[in-house]
Amino acid sequence: MRIMRVEKTLVSTNRQAELGHRPLLVVRDKPGAVPLVAVDAIGCIPGDWVICVSSSAAREAAGSKSYPSDLTIVGIIDNWNPEG
Amino acid sequence: MRIMRVEKTLVSTNRQAELGHRPLLVVRDKPGAVPLVAVDAIGCIPGDWVICVSSSAAREAAGSKSYPSDLTIVGIIDNWNPEG
Amino acid sequence: MRIMRVEKTLVSTNRQAELGHRPLLVVRDKPGAVPLVAVDAIGCIPGDWVICVSSSAAREAAGSKSYPSDLTIVGIIDNWNPEG
Amino acid sequence: MRIMRVEKTLVSTNRQAELGHRPLLVVRDKPGAVPLVAVDAIGCIPGDWVICVSSSAAREAAGSKSYPSDLTIVGIIDNWNPEG
Amino acid sequence: MRIMRVEKTLVSTNRQAELGHRPLLVVRDKPGAVPLVAVDAIGCIPGDWVICVSSSAAREAAGSKSYPSDLTIVGIIDNWNPEG
Repeated sequence: MRIMRVEKTLVSTNRQAELGHRPLLVVRDKPGAVPLVAVDAIGCIPGDWVICVSSSAAREAAGSKSYPSDLTIVGIIDNWNPEG
Repeated sequence: MRIMRVEKTLVSTNRQAELGHRPLLVVRDKPGAVPLVAVDAIGCIPGDWVICVSSSAAREAAGSKSYPSDLTIVGIIDNWNPEG
Repeated sequence: MRIMRVEKTLVSTNRQAELGHRPLLVVRDKPGAVPLVAVDAIGCIPGDWVICVSSSAAREAAGSKSYPSDLTIVGIIDNWNPEG
Repeated sequence: MRIMRVEKTLVSTNRQAELGHRPLLVVRDKPGAVPLVAVDAIGCIPGDWVICVSSSAAREAAGSKSYPSDLTIVGIIDNWNPEG
Repeated sequence: MRIMRVEKTLVSTNRQAELGHRPLLVVRDKPGAVPLVAVDAIGCIPGDWVICVSSSAAREAAGSKSYPSDLTIVGIIDNWNPEG
């Protein structure tokens, strides 16, 4: 799993129905890095450091085997020091 | 999921029948980056910033579990500032 | 999917029976890049620019769910300008 | 599989129930590299060099097909010389 | 698939039972590159240039759908010139 920081919510009005109402969050592993989009299955707020699961495991972690996700947040890290 | 920009349609006359009639689009995450090919399941036009799902989730997102896709567009982003 | 160029056929006499008789081709996304091996499900010749599907979709695209491929050619691009 | 070194345990109080009680460990392939999070299915201690399986195989290696892991430790290496 | 060179056998006494007795080999795509671990399903010796399949296809190529592999050797290349 990857360690990423939540930046903001991504708004996509025109999207697949299968994405449902789960929030899509912009996450980065460090400032300036390529932003990715993760499905929030926990309830995060901007600034949280989170654990993101990718690969086929991201689908079920987002709710069901047919959910179209390749990156899903499965936990919030209690304390993370990115310099650590 | 990855954030990519739609560049143009890719024409491939000689291709697997399983690809059907879904458009194949050339996408890049920034100008000059390596181009990738995504299946359009939404209806995009060049210039759109889109959400692309990869991994095994790309298959069902393209229409069925047996669709040969590893990158499928699942949403158009309302407003995306690549510098943001 | 990735855009790759066919370079040559790869000969592997000692290989898994599950690979069958499908040609294995050396492909690169640009000159000097790391070479990869793709299963040819179309009928390509050296010099062709092709669409390669990776991930779990590469298996069925190569013929069956149990085919041991992680990169399969699913289409030949009609016109590709690598500088484009 | 990747060769990684165990650094420490990661604490995430607010996490998916499916993660259960398996330890989540911070691992790196070399000092200063991007840290990843792996599920410990063996019983490791900080400093161990371990074999990590990724992709869909990480799920079953963590205990079941529905376990949300994309990186699971499947073995401890007896002797590993990172300069080797 | 990736083209890798076999370096040596990896010894892991404390490992998951599901790995069975298949040899685990250290492979690299060039000298000095990050070493990976591949399951040998062919019977290789150090120095061989081999074809490695990754992703979900690596599991069945290693013997069964539940084998915890993400990189499996499926063929030995007859002649490989890494400068080629």
